[in-house]
Amino acid sequence: MSSPGNLAPVVSDLGERALIERIRGRVPAAPSLLPVGIGDDAAVAVPDRGELQVLTTDALVEGVHFDRRFSSPADIGYKALAVNASDIAAMGAAPRLALLSLMLPPALPLSDLDELVGGFLEMAAEARVTVAGGNITRSPGPLIVDVTVTGAVRPRRVLTRDGGAAGQALFVTGQIGAAAAGLGWLRAHGGGRPDQPGLAECVARHQRPEPRLRVGAMLGRTRAASACMDLSDGLADAVRQVASASGTGAVVDGAALPIHPAAAAWFAETGTDAVEASVAGGDDYELLFAVPKRSSGRLRHVVQQARGLAITLIGELTADGGVLLRRDGRAVAMPAGFSHF
Amino acid sequence: MSSPGNLAPVVSDLGERALIERIRGRVPAAPSLLPVGIGDDAAVAVPDRGELQVLTTDALVEGVHFDRRFSSPADIGYKALAVNASDIAAMGAAPRLALLSLMLPPALPLSDLDELVGGFLEMAAEARVTVAGGNITRSPGPLIVDVTVTGAVRPRRVLTRDGGAAGQALFVTGQIGAAAAGLGWLRAHGGGRPDQPGLAECVARHQRPEPRLRVGAMLGRTRAASACMDLSDGLADAVRQVASASGTGAVVDGAALPIHPAAAAWFAETGTDAVEASVAGGDDYELLFAVPKRSSGRLRHVVQQARGLAITLIGELTADGGVLLRRDGRAVAMPAGFSHF
Repeated sequence: MSSPGNLAPVVSDLGERALIERIRGRVPAAPSLLPVGIGDDAAVAVPDRGELQVLTTDALVEGVHFDRRFSSPADIGYKALAVNASDIAAMGAAPRLALLSLMLPPALPLSDLDELVGGFLEMAAEARVTVAGGNITRSPGPLIVDVTVTGAVRPRRVLTRDGGAAGQALFVTGQIGAAAAGLGWLRAHGGGRPDQPGLAECVARHQRPEPRLRVGAMLGRTRAASACMDLSDGLADAVRQVASASGTGAVVDGAALPIHPAAAAWFAETGTDAVEASVAGGDDYELLFAVPKRSSGRLRHVVQQARGLAITLIGELTADGGVLLRRDGRAVAMPAGFSHF
Repeated sequence: MSSPGNLAPVVSDLGERALIERIRGRVPAAPSLLPVGIGDDAAVAVPDRGELQVLTTDALVEGVHFDRRFSSPADIGYKALAVNASDIAAMGAAPRLALLSLMLPPALPLSDLDELVGGFLEMAAEARVTVAGGNITRSPGPLIVDVTVTGAVRPRRVLTRDGGAAGQALFVTGQIGAAAAGLGWLRAHGGGRPDQPGLAECVARHQRPEPRLRVGAMLGRTRAASACMDLSDGLADAVRQVASASGTGAVVDGAALPIHPAAAAWFAETGTDAVEASVAGGDDYELLFAVPKRSSGRLRHVVQQARGLAITLIGELTADGGVLLRRDGRAVAMPAGFSHF
């Protein structure tokens, strides 16, 4: 007798059409926003009146962005949408529609696909995103989840990276370093789940980042921020990008950084410099933003409405071209950012 | 001394940012349509007033959709955009914006990336598509070009698959079977270029399909067609999809099919049934559409404006649920379509 494992259906048992129908059956009915949804040559959507459209695409590639030993199929689906929604939030916009492009190894268990789609739809419900369509094809190599998300924003509320100016304060949402520490723990243990709640939170931050949709939209709506970017490739990278696009330098105070306490403990335990690891580590989907002095009242309003999400002053944009990290009274060059290439 | 080949730069010599900058430098300046283009967290576009938005995504995966021995990097870039533009045309819409998501093997020569982007921009210029953004990541396996295209269409001009009804005539643009014959020739010869002009045309149709943008938009604008779909997965599949979505059957006349003459000769030479191979073969980016009898005047107008592109009556939608192919006076079941899975 074969083991049940050998009998479990895999995605190549179904054709492309059957897989599309399987997903279509689980996607909530297309609202009036979407006259044509999954299943035609293309989707048709009603644009938001008076709003600009925001578009972004980001892929999760097995062996580059995730390891199936460390992330469940549901985590992968969830994160693939979360990282795109984060890019929309960083523009001050609200996410609206998603396209899901799947490249599936033929031997992927059908149950894994179902769970992946489940995780994707969980994030879609949280972000109020309508799944408009997508594509499914075979992959001769890695599992790949490539996602496109559109969003909407009023013209005067767009938050680009290039609106900063010397003298403006730099803030970051939430805590940094958690995702890098969580991934470090997973690699050290070959998977699993830490007993300590703090470390478990770090692992969860790697597996299921929470895009800062509410604060991103508020920063745009209130025009508290002059420039904004998400931390997908780490804080060091984000500070460098915002400064470069704005034509400024930047200085960040290492002692002010909101490093996740369990991450700091993990870095100490493994002999890693916590500040360096936290600014260089990727996968923190927090927002970095610049605030002009005249907008401090607006920022106070955002902080009050942030429902407990920390918003921390970490430094400022400078006239000088350098991007520096202040530590123990000395300013050193900001470490290199994180690169998935 | 190393051979020059060993010294040629590869994509992993550059980081993600440098690769993005390299592409950004070649993309035509963002028009007023696109206040924020490549290089921020997301692109920002001005929607077309009074138009619905059309969205589609389609990926070309090495080893599934193309073989680097048979298609140049420029061909791959060109086709990746062409197949998406074809989906937009099949909705009666005009393409507007594209997002280019690249998954690159680290050892891909930088010159190959440059050529791929060149081919993509060539199609973008032909289709009047603005490149709004994208993503670049490493691939631990195949080269993958995943593309999202948005388009615009007036509300009453949307062409879906489900608008057909029994008694309506079925038409197809251009010629079929060419791409399948071209791929057959390439496989038989391990690459290269046929001496015979007809076969060279077939190979070119596999490498660089021409989306039927003009006729698709005209079919929507004139409302000549009640249902429409492109032939990405072959005519057999398209007829089945349109009939199924419209709740009809269909009968196609094998003798009426506009099979490319050089493709017919190639199929004959290789002992393949030309009709079966032509309806089952994928990668024909022609349009299949249904026309109600009352719209024949409108169709005549489309034919007159089609600039020599053939538009051929091949059958009709029927009340009976079956999808049939008429050959030598007998009706047989339509062969299975093409599947990339």
